Amino acid sequence: MVNELKLKWSRMQQAMREENADGCLLQMKMNLYYVSGQVFNGYFYLPLEGEPHFFLKRMTLTSVGKVHMIRKPEQLPELFRENGLALPKCLLLEGDELSYNEYLRLQKIFAFSKTGNASSIMRKLRMIKTPWEVEQMRTSARIHEAVYREIPSYYRVGMKDIELQIEVERCMRVHGSLGYFRAFGANMEIFMGSILVGENAEVVSPFDFALGGAGVHPSAPLGASGMCLKEGTTVMADMSGNYTAYQTDMTRVFAVGHLPERAYFAHQVALDIQSQMMSKAVPGVACADIYNAALDTACKMGLEDCFMGKAFQSKFVGHGVGLEINELPVFTPRSKDVLLPGMTFAFEPKFVLEGIGAVGIENTFLVTEQGVEKLTILDENIIEFK
Amino acid sequence: MVNELKLKWSRMQQAMREENADGCLLQMKMNLYYVSGQVFNGYFYLPLEGEPHFFLKRMTLTSVGKVHMIRKPEQLPELFRENGLALPKCLLLEGDELSYNEYLRLQKIFAFSKTGNASSIMRKLRMIKTPWEVEQMRTSARIHEAVYREIPSYYRVGMKDIELQIEVERCMRVHGSLGYFRAFGANMEIFMGSILVGENAEVVSPFDFALGGAGVHPSAPLGASGMCLKEGTTVMADMSGNYTAYQTDMTRVFAVGHLPERAYFAHQVALDIQSQMMSKAVPGVACADIYNAALDTACKMGLEDCFMGKAFQSKFVGHGVGLEINELPVFTPRSKDVLLPGMTFAFEPKFVLEGIGAVGIENTFLVTEQGVEKLTILDENIIEFK
Repeated sequence: MVNELKLKWSRMQQAMREENADGCLLQMKMNLYYVSGQVFNGYFYLPLEGEPHFFLKRMTLTSVGKVHMIRKPEQLPELFRENGLALPKCLLLEGDELSYNEYLRLQKIFAFSKTGNASSIMRKLRMIKTPWEVEQMRTSARIHEAVYREIPSYYRVGMKDIELQIEVERCMRVHGSLGYFRAFGANMEIFMGSILVGENAEVVSPFDFALGGAGVHPSAPLGASGMCLKEGTTVMADMSGNYTAYQTDMTRVFAVGHLPERAYFAHQVALDIQSQMMSKAVPGVACADIYNAALDTACKMGLEDCFMGKAFQSKFVGHGVGLEINELPVFTPRSKDVLLPGMTFAFEPKFVLEGIGAVGIENTFLVTEQGVEKLTILDENIIEFK
Repeated sequence: MVNELKLKWSRMQQAMREENADGCLLQMKMNLYYVSGQVFNGYFYLPLEGEPHFFLKRMTLTSVGKVHMIRKPEQLPELFRENGLALPKCLLLEGDELSYNEYLRLQKIFAFSKTGNASSIMRKLRMIKTPWEVEQMRTSARIHEAVYREIPSYYRVGMKDIELQIEVERCMRVHGSLGYFRAFGANMEIFMGSILVGENAEVVSPFDFALGGAGVHPSAPLGASGMCLKEGTTVMADMSGNYTAYQTDMTRVFAVGHLPERAYFAHQVALDIQSQMMSKAVPGVACADIYNAALDTACKMGLEDCFMGKAFQSKFVGHGVGLEINELPVFTPRSKDVLLPGMTFAFEPKFVLEGIGAVGIENTFLVTEQGVEKLTILDENIIEFK
């Protein structure tokens, strides 16, 4: 773990050099986990040269380096002096995550420092996974697959979507799901994943996930809505792969009885779009091109109007995944992101068919030097519930 | 619901008048739920006089008033003009919740407006519940009690804390738990609640909840840790009461076999502290006085060193509860909060006993004109698992 952390710290210092920053102060929990291997309460400070310092409000850290206790951020300048740390001239703070008032408080404390955005830098660094991080994702993927294999065993005739979801949630927890489904952005919220049944897949949700669903309460408008599973409709499972801190993302489609032919047709188009991506995706390829190629195929097959939704169509077909479910890169029409080795991303071409439900596929991929490797390996056909 | 919302909007306008603000723009999901009865994606704008306007990125709202579609916040000034809304001179924004960069973006858009802090105003308003909100909490309380009644039925000899927790979680979901356990503050995180067994109650967690626990993973350092339930130790259940958007908070203690006498003694002291609070708490009483009285009793009974923790002792004994688990008021030594009718709060005197585990009690209370009413009604003795 020490070498893993040293690798991350040195990548951060390289990025700081490029930004002309000489200090980086982090306090958001997933960034803290990234740089220490633990979630703690306090601050991580990395100078441009040398080792980081950990300032803790509660002593919960073990063996990561220079640890100091702190009550409030106003003590930081004095603690810096005591420990021979120069005050930074340009300090990176998590500007996309810290609240406005917390950021102003820190600006006041570091009165003579310019500040820059640590959030965007950390998101770019976290986009390229280390070998250890990829191993964490492989661990998540193996369990993700095992849980999905059990889904058909929970089917009962006439059951409600939420009843199925609850059994899958329990199965996930028994297999070691950490529970938390972490997303970037204060207003993104999802509980363990979603089971979308039949026409509930057509319902628009306020959140920026691929598909919607009404949810069971106006305070939680996403996913399962309490409707019954019906003959001739689909059940799309898109549950979290949070079996380590590093999530995988995977979707499979189940059917109650036999579906109308257009469901199998559209599902096959989604699989074809995935195959096209896999043959096209190598380091250097633009994520926007991958989105556009997927949309092109959907159009050619006459499925443009139900690609990535119906009443509302999401304008992406994939996204980075790791400590959070919506990391970089993004596969949107105007994405500036380009594939690089070490990226991990979910690719999820999906269609919402009126009166049937959602079909399609989602897997998590690793970008290698040669192309992409699929991390989530499981039968991709529509599986009939029996 | 319309009258409920009108009541909230008019309370907001009263608070805006007191702050000399003439506009309030909200976008955080729990504030949006508070003012519309729904979570949506976009902005709620309330002028000092008249009806609010809803600016939606995705059309998911039904019948709440003046609804407009919007793609990005830069369109707000033009949409204001089109709808005869004056640009505010002093605009309230959620300064404790919006990210620094999002806040700056809005400041730039409303270039000629001063800005003030909507977060603190909304937290003060949300502190006093409406009769409808209290009814929501009563609904949560009834189900919370029903779930806790089932906890002993999940006990098996030799089981692990996490195994018990998973069964309780499933039971909660079957009874309608919404899953989400919402807390104020970006770094507060808890999954459905915690089951603390034996000496795991002594382990310090980074989060600002009453007690800790090691958790099962360094990315999720709170609550159950995978240890086995052992004869002569306690099992403290502090699971979420999230059966409506309004949570209740309740803790009960279970025992594996018979406990050492000091466990029953300390538990009784916690019940006495609760009784003292109930006889003392009327509108006008300072929350700091209630904390200090609780601490006094703990000291007199020789339990000062294990009150609200052992290796780390939390400096509060209660907290407001509603849409989030850590609302106002706070019961801390230096709290400036004073009890007012309509407040709902959790009161949780607890002790952590070396080698035994946590004992104590937690209930949710409503402040009435005459005193406090206990909302969560359930046997408060230590219940032996059989």
